[in-house]
Amino acid sequence: MSLLTVGSVAFDAIETPFGKTDKIIGGAGTYIALASSFFAKNQNIVSVVGDDFPQEMLDLLSQRGVDLTGLQIKQGEKTFFWSGKYHNDMNTRDTLITELNVLENFDPIIPSDYQGADFLMLGNLSPQVQRSVIERLTERPKLIAMDTMNFWMDIALDELKKTMALVDLLIINDEEARQLSGQSSLVKAAKVIRAMGPKYLIIKKGEHGALLFHGDKIFFAPALPLEEVFDPTGAGDTFAGGFMGYLASTGDISFENMKRAIIAGSALASYCVEQFGTQKLVEITQENLDARIQEFVALSNYDMVYQAN
Amino acid sequence: MSLLTVGSVAFDAIETPFGKTDKIIGGAGTYIALASSFFAKNQNIVSVVGDDFPQEMLDLLSQRGVDLTGLQIKQGEKTFFWSGKYHNDMNTRDTLITELNVLENFDPIIPSDYQGADFLMLGNLSPQVQRSVIERLTERPKLIAMDTMNFWMDIALDELKKTMALVDLLIINDEEARQLSGQSSLVKAAKVIRAMGPKYLIIKKGEHGALLFHGDKIFFAPALPLEEVFDPTGAGDTFAGGFMGYLASTGDISFENMKRAIIAGSALASYCVEQFGTQKLVEITQENLDARIQEFVALSNYDMVYQAN
Repeated sequence: MSLLTVGSVAFDAIETPFGKTDKIIGGAGTYIALASSFFAKNQNIVSVVGDDFPQEMLDLLSQRGVDLTGLQIKQGEKTFFWSGKYHNDMNTRDTLITELNVLENFDPIIPSDYQGADFLMLGNLSPQVQRSVIERLTERPKLIAMDTMNFWMDIALDELKKTMALVDLLIINDEEARQLSGQSSLVKAAKVIRAMGPKYLIIKKGEHGALLFHGDKIFFAPALPLEEVFDPTGAGDTFAGGFMGYLASTGDISFENMKRAIIAGSALASYCVEQFGTQKLVEITQENLDARIQEFVALSNYDMVYQAN
Repeated sequence: MSLLTVGSVAFDAIETPFGKTDKIIGGAGTYIALASSFFAKNQNIVSVVGDDFPQEMLDLLSQRGVDLTGLQIKQGEKTFFWSGKYHNDMNTRDTLITELNVLENFDPIIPSDYQGADFLMLGNLSPQVQRSVIERLTERPKLIAMDTMNFWMDIALDELKKTMALVDLLIINDEEARQLSGQSSLVKAAKVIRAMGPKYLIIKKGEHGALLFHGDKIFFAPALPLEEVFDPTGAGDTFAGGFMGYLASTGDISFENMKRAIIAGSALASYCVEQFGTQKLVEITQENLDARIQEFVALSNYDMVYQAN
C-alpha cells in the first residue's frame, strides 16, 4: 500500500563527543523516506528544498522508490539548515543555528497522483502545515501518524491540539509526553494525550526503548543495547519511517502488526545512530536489516512456559 | 531443587510522597524469601534478628515453606533497622537512620541440613559475610547469585571484588554497574564487570526494565508500566527472589530459562511497589501472580513474521 510522507529535507551540521560534521544531509522527511524504503515500495514525499540541495541524494531517493513529484525545488532559495551540539550524555543537545530558508513559507502542495494514499506520515513541522496536509487529502488515509516536538508545545499548543485531534497515531518522546500531558507517569500521560485525539500513541524512550498504547493494551519494545551512540540525529525519524514503512508494506494496522512495525523501526534506528547523519542508513543492505531484526527477536522474545506451583 | 538465601531480616521505616510508615518488616532476606516462595518449595534462610522481631512474620515464612533453622534469634538484642525517605522522583532516597544492631557482628552459620543447596542467593550484605557463606558450603551450588550496593563499592571495593570473583551471577542496578565499571555505556560496563568474575550479570534499570548478559547474549526484560510507584523499597530483592525461586523450582539454568525467571521476578517486583513494604507480596495469590506474568507476556512478546522485500 502507498505511504505519503511530509517532512523536511534539509542540511544539518552536527557536533557530538565523537566528532563534528560540516553541512550534511538531514531532515525528518529524508530519514523517514530512507527508512521506510526498506519496506514500502510505493512511497511519495511532499517537501521543499532550495537549489543548493545535492542531486545525488534526490537520485538516491528515487532509486529507492521514493516518488519526488511532491518535492518542490525553489530556485534561488536555500535549503533548511539546522546545526546542533550534543552534550556528553547524548540525551540533550543545544541548537546552534536554525535557518528556516525554504521552510519559512512552505506550502505543502499535494500532487494529484498522491491522492488516495493509504498511509500518511507527518514528520515534525508546524502543526498548521501538518493540518493543511490532512485537509488537502480528498480521501482519509487508513492511518495518519504525526511526529511533533516540544518547540510546538511551547509556541503553538492550540494549533498542535487541533492537529492532534485529526490524527490516529502520535509519535513523541518521553519528555514531550510529560510536557504535553503535565503528568510524570508515562501511563498517566498516555491517557491524557489519547484523550486529545490520537487512538494510538508511541512514546519513544531513547536507549530505554518505546511504548505503544492503544485501548487498554500496552506494548514495550526494547532499544538495542549499544556500546556507544555516535550520533542520535534522525533516530526518531528513522524509527517512525521504519514503523510506517512496515505497516504500509503489510497493509495491516492491527495491534499485533504494530508490534512488529515497532521492532522494524527500532532496528533501523539502532543502525542510524552508529554514524553521522544518514550515512549508515544509506550503507546498510536488506540483509543487514534482517539480521538486526533477528537480534531484536533474540533480545526481547521468550517462550513463557509457566506452570503454577 | 533447594534454594539457600542469605540476607537481612529487618525493620524499615519508609517515607514516600504517598505517605510514611512506622517500623514495618523489611530486609533483603525477607523480600527474597517471600518472593521465591511463590516458586521454590525447598527454601532455607540464613539470617539474624533480635528478640523484638514479630513471631507472626516468622510463622508466615514457615507456612510458605521457608525453613528457619538458619535464622538466629539473638536474645536481648535488637533487629537491624533502616529508615529512609524517597524523593519525589522515587529514583533517589536519603537514608535517615541505620541501626546495625544484630547485623554488626553477624556470623552466618550454615546449619548442616542446609549443606548441598542447589542454589545460593546472597542478598546485599558486607562482601566479607557473603564470601564466608560461599567458603562454608561443602559443595558448590549449581548457581551462586549475589546482590550488592554502591555502599560496598565506596568502602570495601577490594573485598567486594574478592567475593565477586567467586559468584556466577551478579545482580545490581544501572548506577551501581556504572560505578563498579567506570563505564557509562551499560554494554561496556557489562564487559568490565563480567571480567571481574560473574559469568552472568543482571543490570536492573528500575522502571526501564532489566538486562541479562551472558557470553555474547543479551536479554532485555521490560518493567510493567505503572500509573504510580507507591514504595520502591524491596523491589530489587523481590526481583532477585522471584528470579532465583523460578530457577530453583525448574532446576534449569539455561539462558532461555533465565529469561523466564527474569519475567517471574519482574512480575513480583511490579506487585511489591504497589504498597508499603512487604504488604502486597503477602496479600497476592498464586492466581494474581499468574495473571501478572501473562500481562508481561502481552506487554513484550510478539511474533516477528518478517518477509524481506
